[in-house]
Amino acid sequence: MSEIRKTIEANNKKFGEFVRKGDAKALASLYTRDASLLPTGSVVVKGNEAVQEFWAGAITGLKLKDADLKTVEVVGEGDSVTEMGEYHLKMEQGEDKGKYMVVWKSTPEGWKLHWDIWNTSQAPTE
Amino acid sequence: MSEIRKTIEANNKKFGEFVRKGDAKALASLYTRDASLLPTGSVVVKGNEAVQEFWAGAITGLKLKDADLKTVEVVGEGDSVTEMGEYHLKMEQGEDKGKYMVVWKSTPEGWKLHWDIWNTSQAPTE
Repeated sequence: MSEIRKTIEANNKKFGEFVRKGDAKALASLYTRDASLLPTGSVVVKGNEAVQEFWAGAITGLKLKDADLKTVEVVGEGDSVTEMGEYHLKMEQGEDKGKYMVVWKSTPEGWKLHWDIWNTSQAPTE
Repeated sequence: MSEIRKTIEANNKKFGEFVRKGDAKALASLYTRDASLLPTGSVVVKGNEAVQEFWAGAITGLKLKDADLKTVEVVGEGDSVTEMGEYHLKMEQGEDKGKYMVVWKSTPEGWKLHWDIWNTSQAPTE
């Protein structure tokens, strides 16, 4: 498990680097081919191309500048494990802090994000 | 896996029944002792008592009346598996549809919700 956790943490570091570079294609390369993203306010985003489009939209639309992902715990065994973590996003217009769960899947190209869901921890402003 | 999926679906059915009864204690009994809930707009809710308080608050505050949980897929093996699903909530004042991921953990009292995160699929109204 500790080995997998190290791999996950290394991939999360890459995730942050790719966001800072604004490189949606590199971000998508961290996901499986048939990955599912579960973003707030959207139906499920399915497949690697759609994942790339989603992150491209976040980079150009939301002007996402940085993503810091911190692993809290990893459970599971075998070919897929599940991570719980905390995120800190920086957009041009503000920040967001929240939490996420990711199913990581072992593939011939290494461990990849397979299912990815998150939500904000910030109370809604009315 | 198919056996586990059946168990999960049976537990999700109970979840709906307990919501319709407004029974937060029974809802909490579906979770592990050290369960984590990851609700939108809140930090992580930790431990079975806090989980019970959260659902009691949803029942009395949000006037949650019904929850329909539909399993889409289950992955993993061993003592914990992860479910992706779709929810449909009915409150006194309206409805919400969205998606969730749950880590189910095998305990001496059977399979229980251990980590539970969800978010709405409905686009924000401005």
